[in-house]
Amino acid sequence: MQTVSETRAHGGVQGVYAYASSACNCEMTFAVFVPPQAESQACPVIWYLSGLTCNHTNVTDKGEYRQMAAEMGIIIVCPDTSPRGDDVPDEPDNWQFGKGAGFYLNATQEPFNKHYNMYDYLVDELPKLIGEKFNADMSRQSIMGHSMGGHGALTIALKNPNTFRSCSAFAPICRPSEASWSKPSFEKYLGTDEAGWRQYDACDLIVDGNRFSPILVDQGDKDQFMEEGCRPQALAKAVRGTEIDATIRIQEGYDHSYFFISTFMPEHIAWHADHLK
Amino acid sequence: MQTVSETRAHGGVQGVYAYASSACNCEMTFAVFVPPQAESQACPVIWYLSGLTCNHTNVTDKGEYRQMAAEMGIIIVCPDTSPRGDDVPDEPDNWQFGKGAGFYLNATQEPFNKHYNMYDYLVDELPKLIGEKFNADMSRQSIMGHSMGGHGALTIALKNPNTFRSCSAFAPICRPSEASWSKPSFEKYLGTDEAGWRQYDACDLIVDGNRFSPILVDQGDKDQFMEEGCRPQALAKAVRGTEIDATIRIQEGYDHSYFFISTFMPEHIAWHADHLK
Repeated sequence: MQTVSETRAHGGVQGVYAYASSACNCEMTFAVFVPPQAESQACPVIWYLSGLTCNHTNVTDKGEYRQMAAEMGIIIVCPDTSPRGDDVPDEPDNWQFGKGAGFYLNATQEPFNKHYNMYDYLVDELPKLIGEKFNADMSRQSIMGHSMGGHGALTIALKNPNTFRSCSAFAPICRPSEASWSKPSFEKYLGTDEAGWRQYDACDLIVDGNRFSPILVDQGDKDQFMEEGCRPQALAKAVRGTEIDATIRIQEGYDHSYFFISTFMPEHIAWHADHLK
Repeated sequence: MQTVSETRAHGGVQGVYAYASSACNCEMTFAVFVPPQAESQACPVIWYLSGLTCNHTNVTDKGEYRQMAAEMGIIIVCPDTSPRGDDVPDEPDNWQFGKGAGFYLNATQEPFNKHYNMYDYLVDELPKLIGEKFNADMSRQSIMGHSMGGHGALTIALKNPNTFRSCSAFAPICRPSEASWSKPSFEKYLGTDEAGWRQYDACDLIVDGNRFSPILVDQGDKDQFMEEGCRPQALAKAVRGTEIDATIRIQEGYDHSYFFISTFMPEHIAWHADHLK
């Protein structure tokens, strides 16, 4: 693991690191905020998964997570959204597919299956590295994300209920198998047999019996992507009648941007911190 | 005044606006955060002046000022750092002069004096517009800034002690007349007669009898620009023995970036809020 940068922030260190990922067959870069408490004790971890087109810098610059993380003593890990590099197949003019749009799945289709294994990267490979290289208590993890990263957080939590204490999302893509901006990508990564898509769709996972609690979702009602891309009503429908403890809030006047995310970020961090105690 | 964008954030509105400036003879863009309290009462104003190469977006994205401003009920105005547009003379390869480097002064030298009048823009023109267009209590203003903007905040406060209640700065350029990264710009904007520079140098202003209190300065000790660019020791020397109430703090481990600014931003906003009551 190479240190790209380490910068003092809120009494801790905002770092950026890179290493050769086996899961993704390329160099992967990620950001880690280490709070001041980690100097003397192992700290719990919150994963923040970013949305389409992003890498780690968007939330690192605009997410406003450090103040509360430093107060609560929580490590925040912000991975990239896809494999990167000249060898990685891509559709440069398509912001919903390829680089910046890994959808947190393991691709099964050529030529994407060589690099697009973000699920394994996040569930197996990167947590091991975090546990080795940082003063992290990996028995206490939570996960959150925005938009495509909200989809990632929900699906990864539902499939790994014993790994995470809590899961939250800002404007998640709740129903990627049906949304016009994710369905074509699922076809290319996973093939046309939609049975294979169900494990990467939060609503299908719940219908198929997966369970995770607690879940917190915030969705802005002025989000231009709400109806077609995010579909919070589909998630609300899926959890209804199950034992899942889910809070889905519609926030008046908010859009899909980091102005929305940064508004509710401190509350989400504090909510996770409660569950990580 | 045209609205470029208005976005819900922290219960208020983060706006970006543009208008034809008389002082700068060009269209000027600026950002204003209006807290929720402004719906029912006139709110005090803090001016945030940005550093070299910046426009309003740097602090709007990375400054983390909105949460505390919303809590305290304060309007935050973030102007640009220079005139803009194709007609404005510039040295595109020089980040310390021209566009992005207006130094908050009125240029006296051709051809810069037609547009580079940031002092008049900020002291006379833009405050009138803010008072007209927003629910602002212009009898309660404070001013802050970063680097070149810290220089702007200090010099503008020292020259207008009755306009502002408090002044703070992150890593300000305390002695621009002597620093290698500002002296060449002063020559081009103001001519070679250094007598005309004194009104734009915080230390000279104090020596010449200008007074402002209170002043709060934070300076990171890992700031690569501290010794040559910022020179906090020159400011400390200038205020010594005067009645100026100045707190100059060296913050261990911090650099010159927005990771430093955002760390201390909430404390600065709260400090100003105390003086704006």
